[in-house]
Order: sequence, then structure tokens, then C-alpha cells
Amino acid sequence: MKRIKILDSLTESESLKTRTDNQKLINFGIGDTAFITPYPIIEATQIGLGTNKTHYTDSKGIVELREAISSYLQKFDIPSTLDDIIITPGAMQAVFYSLFIHVEEGTKVGLFEPAWLAYNKIIKVCGGIPVFCSLKNNRLTITALEVFIENDVKVIIINNPTNPTGKVWEKKELDILVNYCKENKVLLISDEVYNEIVYDKKFISIGQYKGINSIVIGSFSKVFSMTGWRLGYIYSKNKKNIDRINKLQQITATCPNSFVQYGAIDFEAELSKIQTQVAVYKRNRDLLYKTLSKINLKPLFPDGTFYMWVNVGMDGKKFAEKVYNDYGIVVVPGKPYGNDTQNFIRISYALPTEKVIRACKRLKDIKWVDAYKKLGGEK
Amino acid sequence: MKRIKILDSLTESESLKTRTDNQKLINFGIGDTAFITPYPIIEATQIGLGTNKTHYTDSKGIVELREAISSYLQKFDIPSTLDDIIITPGAMQAVFYSLFIHVEEGTKVGLFEPAWLAYNKIIKVCGGIPVFCSLKNNRLTITALEVFIENDVKVIIINNPTNPTGKVWEKKELDILVNYCKENKVLLISDEVYNEIVYDKKFISIGQYKGINSIVIGSFSKVFSMTGWRLGYIYSKNKKNIDRINKLQQITATCPNSFVQYGAIDFEAELSKIQTQVAVYKRNRDLLYKTLSKINLKPLFPDGTFYMWVNVGMDGKKFAEKVYNDYGIVVVPGKPYGNDTQNFIRISYALPTEKVIRACKRLKDIKWVDAYKKLGGEK
Repeated sequence: MKRIKILDSLTESESLKTRTDNQKLINFGIGDTAFITPYPIIEATQIGLGTNKTHYTDSKGIVELREAISSYLQKFDIPSTLDDIIITPGAMQAVFYSLFIHVEEGTKVGLFEPAWLAYNKIIKVCGGIPVFCSLKNNRLTITALEVFIENDVKVIIINNPTNPTGKVWEKKELDILVNYCKENKVLLISDEVYNEIVYDKKFISIGQYKGINSIVIGSFSKVFSMTGWRLGYIYSKNKKNIDRINKLQQITATCPNSFVQYGAIDFEAELSKIQTQVAVYKRNRDLLYKTLSKINLKPLFPDGTFYMWVNVGMDGKKFAEKVYNDYGIVVVPGKPYGNDTQNFIRISYALPTEKVIRACKRLKDIKWVDAYKKLGGEK
Repeated sequence: MKRIKILDSLTESESLKTRTDNQKLINFGIGDTAFITPYPIIEATQIGLGTNKTHYTDSKGIVELREAISSYLQKFDIPSTLDDIIITPGAMQAVFYSLFIHVEEGTKVGLFEPAWLAYNKIIKVCGGIPVFCSLKNNRLTITALEVFIENDVKVIIINNPTNPTGKVWEKKELDILVNYCKENKVLLISDEVYNEIVYDKKFISIGQYKGINSIVIGSFSKVFSMTGWRLGYIYSKNKKNIDRINKLQQITATCPNSFVQYGAIDFEAELSKIQTQVAVYKRNRDLLYKTLSKINLKPLFPDGTFYMWVNVGMDGKKFAEKVYNDYGIVVVPGKPYGNDTQNFIRISYALPTEKVIRACKRLKDIKWVDAYKKLGGEK
């Protein structure tokens, strides 16, 4: 059976596998934050639990939270009504829904390399064929999109800001992309789960573009350190997208967890506090970028997210094994993120800064550079 | 696109639509209980929330809860290890996983009529074709299975105890079914989410049968009144089933909610208290069965679950509209439950007994019987 063959060919999620690490390890592997969910959200959820908010909700999610999300989206110049929003148990499930209703046997789906590895897997499991587009200098130009024309791509998915590069898409890039999708009648899925984790640039949502068939995916996981809560949402002005996703949700998740939804209603009030964490991520980014550049690795400078994408000049998996065994540092090998990503690793740095400092000290170790040379590294 | 056509052809879930009913209505529609989750589970979840159990867990679920489920399964003579169990965000998602990895374009899946309507939808959305088997006197015989042989059915799904009939499968029926699946190399999926809601008969799990490729699905939703929590599990002795479902979970749900898992660890201690609720359901069943029989409807006597399946002798949808408009009672029309179920309705009676008494009083109303005759009812 085809679907089974595809599933069997997929590797298990690296980030999940490295979860049970011991204390001495510095875990740059997992796409999670070391921070605690804002207490008011925790407390509101505890109250929901104690007041019988423990039963099924509407499959689209409770009205109060959809209203709160609708209000929040105004921040990004997205005009929405309740009918445009459906709450999902996490953004991954939202990505699955969005692709599952648009991808059938042989549908070509466009991705920008390096792309978060789950996209590739979901596309394949839905029967589709991933088509990777490489960006020169990590910026989109019209010519880069030729590969999508050649392959008759029907759906494009982007992650903005991007896991694993930290790229924040610029307005002129989004303009190019949106025009392309309009002209070629391509559905554009924009996964914007890191929308609040942006350092110097301005984040622009696909939701503000009109006249395009688009789906915007948001989440509470990364911004509010709520990865275990499983809470995300979908925004789309296309009623058919929402209707179909709702029907799919009714026969998969049924509805998102009830008290989690009640607990999150006042999330917007917590946004100002999140800035403290974003400042930590930024400090970590600066430290890591400086250290890695000094030891002659080639990190891409991230403008958002809490990831760094690093050209290590050798097989990323070998590199990852070496830093794991000799230095107690977990990083994710880059190969599954694209076609030409073998020599890369991803570093997830949503850790307390002291851990990042410790990791930087370990990496500066002279023996490491020797070992690296022995392993066949470039320098 | 085929998948879109299928989704568009599906009706929205009735039980979800009737959720926002006003107070005067007596809602026999929704497959939820009117009871509150046992307090120790709520409290343990609140503690999990307050102690940073708010991050990703292993995609299979936390070891502590898998251990607790493994221990609990001994009650049903199911020998299990941690490797046989994967925790899911609800049983619906578990059914979706189980079917999605076994059903491809054109795969025939066997169901027993009437079957919980979500099965039919999930099978279709996965690309499969539902094949309904009718049971004489609601009991399985070898001859009934001929329709599965004729159609070369590759997967069979049962619900034991059964939504919507309340049927509890007898040992001799399960023996016949298991032998059939063994001989014909058919995967057997047994959805056992009502396993603790059984009145007089003994419940037998498919998990106790050896030498068969089976998947058992359990849930906390119905037994512990935890429908909004989204917590279920899968048990299978077939390692490939678990591996594939785990990979699928990694690219859909990611993992079940973290603090919900921690909160449920000691669930077995709550089982004795659940008996009070089961006693209420039983009393409700007796009241309803007596009343409905008296007004010449034909209810099937349920041995488990909190559903009653009633032949109303006329179009079930018309009947449902009539009792809704004239009597403020919500019931679910039977048509989507099978091929020959048009004249049936489903009643969900996990309500406080006083509500059931009130409903019985309304239904006894003489005007109702007249109206019923006018509408074309049998009597």
C-alpha cells in the first residue's frame, strides 16, 4: 500500500527523539522553548477545569477565543470575522488539514529550501510531491519561481518567519509570491507560528493580501511557550477552506481541548510580557552567531524565530554526532530540510542564555577544531 | 479533486450542531455526558499546569500514562507492554489514524449497520468504500459475513459496546468475527470507548484475542465524562501499526496535550466512582425503554453505552423535527448510520434522570400521538 510505504520511508521526528536528554546535555535540537507559559493563561485554564469547561466545544472552537483571535489579527492588518477562523489542536494539525484538503495523488506542492521538515512529510503522506525552490542569498526573486511553473505547482507553503533559517519574508518578496499565486491560481499556505518572534525586521502576514486563495496558520505554541497545550488556528477568507477543514476536524480532532480554549481567551494581554523572552532569544542569537562565525562555521543570520541555520562545511549528521558525543550538544542535521541541505545543521536556541554561553565555551574548544578537521570539515 | 468532493458531500456532524441548545430543550442529540470529570483528575491536571508540564511530550505519550493504561488493560485480559500503546488526542483521532494507514483508494472497509456515522465519513475521506453488514436480531452469525467476502473487505471496524444501538458483543460473535479476520487476513479495528458503560452483560475486548492483526481503541471521554479533554489511546500487538501511527501522529497532532496526560495517570482509581453514573444511565435506559415501547415506538434494548436506537416507523428526520419543534426534544435521525436506517433515531441519555422523566412525560402527550399519525407514522 502506497501510504504505508511512504510512512515507512519517513524518519522519525528528530526533535521528538532528542527530548529525553539528560541534564548535562545542551539541547539545541528540540523546537521548543525553555520558558514557562504566562501564568494568567495557566490560571484561566485551571479555572476552566474547575468550572466544568470540560466537554465538547463547537468543532470550530469557542466563540470567545475566535473573537479574541479575530481582534488580534487586526494588528497585522487582517480584516476577519468569526467565520474566517477555526481553532485547531496545534499548528501541525492545521498544516495537515490545509494540505490534506488540497493535495491528492500527484499534486505538486511548492516549498522553499530549507523547509521545515514536517511539510515534506505531510505532503507525501497526503499523496503529493514536494517541489523545492532554492533562494539565492535567501531572498525570493521572480526567476526563482520558475521551478514552480515548470512543475505546475498547485499549492505553495511558506513558513514566515522561517524554521530553520530565521528568515523574515520582506514585503517585496511577499508581493512577488502573492502575484505569482494570483496569476497561476495557486493556493498559498502561510505558516506564521513565529509571528511575534521577530528581532529587527517587520513581520508581514499573508493575511493582509486580498484577492488570493490563502490560508494563514497561527499558534500559541512558540510565542507563549505553550507547545504541550496543542492550540493553533487557521484564518482564511475562502469559506470553502474553512468549511472543509471544519468537516475534517469533526472526523479527526473532533474539537480542540475545551479548557485550553477557555484559558487562552485573554492571550493578547500577555503579548507585552513575551518581549522579555524575545530579548533573550535575540541575545542568544547574537552570542551564537559570533561564536560560530569565529570557529569558521557559516551561520545564516536569523531575523526571527529561535533557530539558526548553519553551514558546517561537512556532513551535518556526522557533525551532529560529533558535537553530541564529544561536547554534549544536540543539534539537528539539515539533510531532511531540502535537496541540497546535507552540509547544514539547525540550532534551536530558545534556552536560558547561560546555557548558550556554556555551549559557546564548549564549541570554542581547540580540540574540537582539530577533530572537525579530521572528520573532513572544510577548514 | 476527489477528496474535496467527498468532504463537500459529507453532512456536518449532527451532534455538534445541536450543541448550542437552550435550557428548555432536552438534548438527547449529543454524544456527551451531563456529568463532571472526577475531581482528582481535574486536580492532577491543574497541578500539571502549575508545575510546567506544559511542553511537548513524547509523540507516543508520557511513559507514566502508558504504564497506567497497560496496567488497566489487564482487567480485560490484555497482555501489553509500553510498546503496544500510543496515546492519542481522543478516540476519533485514533480511528482516523487506524483507518488512514490501512485504507487507500478503493479499499473496502466492513461496518456493521447501524454504525457510528463518523466511521463512514472517515473511510470515505481516506479514499475507501464502506461495506455495510446487516445483523439479524442484532447478533452476528457466520452467514452475515458473506457480504464482506463478496466485497473483498480488507479492514473491519466495530464499536463494542455499540453507538448507536447499545449492543454489547457476545463472546460467540467475537469468536466468529475474529476467526473470519484471521482466515481472510483482515485487519480488525475495535473501538471500545464505552467499555466501562455496560449494564448486565460482560464486556469482552478484542485485545484478548491472539494471532490476529487488530487495533483496540480506548478513550477517557465517555467513561470519565472527559469529552472536551481529547484523550484516547491505541493498543496493538502489531509493532508496525504502532510505528506507523506514531509517525502519523508526529505530523498531525504532534503529541497529545501534556498536562492532560499527567492529570489522567491515576484514572484507574476513579473507576469505582463511575459506577454511580452507570447506574444513572441504566435507570434512564429503563425509563426510556418503557415509555417508548408504550407509545408504540420500537426501541432496541441497550446492554451498554448511553444510546438507544429506536425504530420510529416513519422518516427519522421528520420525526426528529417534530419532537424538536413541538416537544423541545433533540434526537438524531438515523439515516447516516447505514443503508437501511432511515426510519430510526438515536437517543443519547447520559442526562440527569429528572430530565429523562420530563422527556418521557412530554412524549406520552396524547397530542403527540395524533400528530405522529398525521405525519404518516405506522400506528
